[in-house]
Amino acid sequence: MNQTTSTTQKNVFRSLWIKKFGAPSIFEMEEKYLEQKDLKSDEILIDVHYSGINFADIIMRQGLYKDAPKRPFVPGYEVSGIVTHIGNKVAHLKVGDEVMAGSLFGGYASKMRLPAWMAFKLPNNLSMEEGAALPVNFITAYVSLYDMGRVRAGDQVVVDCASGGVGVIALQMLKSLGAVAYGLTSSPDKLDFIESFGAKALTHEVFFRDYKNIPFDFILNSQGGASVKKHYEYLGPTGRMVCLGVSSGISAGKRDLLKIAKTVLTMPKFSLLSMFDQNKGVFALNALKLMENNDYIKKLMGKFSLISELNLKPHIGKIFNYTDIGLAHEFIEAKKAKGKVLISWKE
Amino acid sequence: MNQTTSTTQKNVFRSLWIKKFGAPSIFEMEEKYLEQKDLKSDEILIDVHYSGINFADIIMRQGLYKDAPKRPFVPGYEVSGIVTHIGNKVAHLKVGDEVMAGSLFGGYASKMRLPAWMAFKLPNNLSMEEGAALPVNFITAYVSLYDMGRVRAGDQVVVDCASGGVGVIALQMLKSLGAVAYGLTSSPDKLDFIESFGAKALTHEVFFRDYKNIPFDFILNSQGGASVKKHYEYLGPTGRMVCLGVSSGISAGKRDLLKIAKTVLTMPKFSLLSMFDQNKGVFALNALKLMENNDYIKKLMGKFSLISELNLKPHIGKIFNYTDIGLAHEFIEAKKAKGKVLISWKE
Repeated sequence: MNQTTSTTQKNVFRSLWIKKFGAPSIFEMEEKYLEQKDLKSDEILIDVHYSGINFADIIMRQGLYKDAPKRPFVPGYEVSGIVTHIGNKVAHLKVGDEVMAGSLFGGYASKMRLPAWMAFKLPNNLSMEEGAALPVNFITAYVSLYDMGRVRAGDQVVVDCASGGVGVIALQMLKSLGAVAYGLTSSPDKLDFIESFGAKALTHEVFFRDYKNIPFDFILNSQGGASVKKHYEYLGPTGRMVCLGVSSGISAGKRDLLKIAKTVLTMPKFSLLSMFDQNKGVFALNALKLMENNDYIKKLMGKFSLISELNLKPHIGKIFNYTDIGLAHEFIEAKKAKGKVLISWKE
Repeated sequence: MNQTTSTTQKNVFRSLWIKKFGAPSIFEMEEKYLEQKDLKSDEILIDVHYSGINFADIIMRQGLYKDAPKRPFVPGYEVSGIVTHIGNKVAHLKVGDEVMAGSLFGGYASKMRLPAWMAFKLPNNLSMEEGAALPVNFITAYVSLYDMGRVRAGDQVVVDCASGGVGVIALQMLKSLGAVAYGLTSSPDKLDFIESFGAKALTHEVFFRDYKNIPFDFILNSQGGASVKKHYEYLGPTGRMVCLGVSSGISAGKRDLLKIAKTVLTMPKFSLLSMFDQNKGVFALNALKLMENNDYIKKLMGKFSLISELNLKPHIGKIFNYTDIGLAHEFIEAKKAKGKVLISWKE
């Protein structure tokens, strides 16, 4: 069990701040002493071991994410770590517990104070690294498949970025749901990886060329832009699509406004009148925005038990030390990541 | 059991034609002798007892329904009657069976020839009148709740025209699904009728005023126009809406192009980008258009067993003799109908 300590030195914590927008190098590190005397009765304090990086963090750093807090702020939606203090009304966790947690910003820090219900005891099947890699992708995949799409056994389902962080979780869930899963990728060398999750793996090209006649029940679209209307055409009667934001607008190393603008402009409007001929549906999901809804997220935290039930495993791409946060952002922007990118707070 | 007969007189049949667009009085009746020698192996012939009238027929007669056949044509999507002849490969029906059937036009006729799979043996719990009143409303409610919305036990569900043909079937299905149903109406005098199906009944006004804080999982919208975006706001996180066409554009007694145009113009476009803040979904359903999809409709016919399982009952408003087809259309356009309007082919 971890020492909870009151030595001054141990209460120093570091956090990574966005004070101005720009290149990956703009992060500023601060060291502070933590005040825990005012921990609320329903809060916990965590020694953070790993923090997950999300695409939204990249856009946020570029100044292009409208739901970001006002500068200066510490980004970060998910962490893993060890509970060091608990408020006197916290029942489901105790000091020393290993946990994974979501948070509405503030995750790029070596210590976090947050409402206890945002944390979930790390399931036995996950390492501490995996715990920081899973919350956002799990929530995204779960909400898409279970709550929005309500996928059923026998459904024919397409996952468009099947080797990505959400994709691999979605494929594992689909297998357990008894759906017939098709996993798409732009890289022929990822086909084997996708098939290892029990899905039929296809390149986007082959999918569009050869799979027109399958009446798909559900398509999970992560690419956005022009792909949305193309995928919509491939849905069968009563089929539904869940669209996950605009990762296709992320470009390497600079604020590529032109590319983002293009993605935004090609995001379709759905005219309800024209939809009447199609008998289909469309959902849009911003899992991070959902985290603003306490009631819903509390309900969702109860679903984290699926992680051990289905033995869900995130795929970790690379771990950077917190001092290399700039390199970590660069790595994602250059699209080098195959799996989740984390920062480690180990000294 | 009904006589199957070959007397010439009995093979006369009458049908009601739209040859020009216009007022309810434009229908022209024709009498013809039926040729049954060329009945295909998978077809049946029905002596029609009742034909159901749908809103689409009204718009079609006004020349405003783009999926109508070319003039001249016989409208009509649903009938009940008795099988008089069957093709030699028809297995699930026999001569003399009472049936309910869907059809892509041609239902305003005293005899119908149609593919056997479009007909379903009349369940014991239904009268012949009820059999003609149910197919389109059953399909619409079933597809909305089961296939599109995939409503679950505990879902909080709104049905906006709860006393209408689709509405009363939807309320009965929702009860069986274990959903918490709210039925809306513009008429305070229909509240008791709606509550008789186990739903909470509300006027539209009260709903919009007092029910903002319930995170609804599903809204069935029949009104179209401006109501769509208003209802969309009332959906909770991951909630979905199914929109059912544009009945609010139907106006009394004349081709009210202005009113229809207004309904069409206020049918919203959903910008996917703005949807990302909402985490909701929208489906559009034209059940009549679905009937063009043989594979899907064949699958759907298998679900008609729910009618007896749930003891579903349509609510019949009024039955007109076929000679009064103009009065029947007028009755619907004047919004006098409380329940399904049928035409009877009894002499």
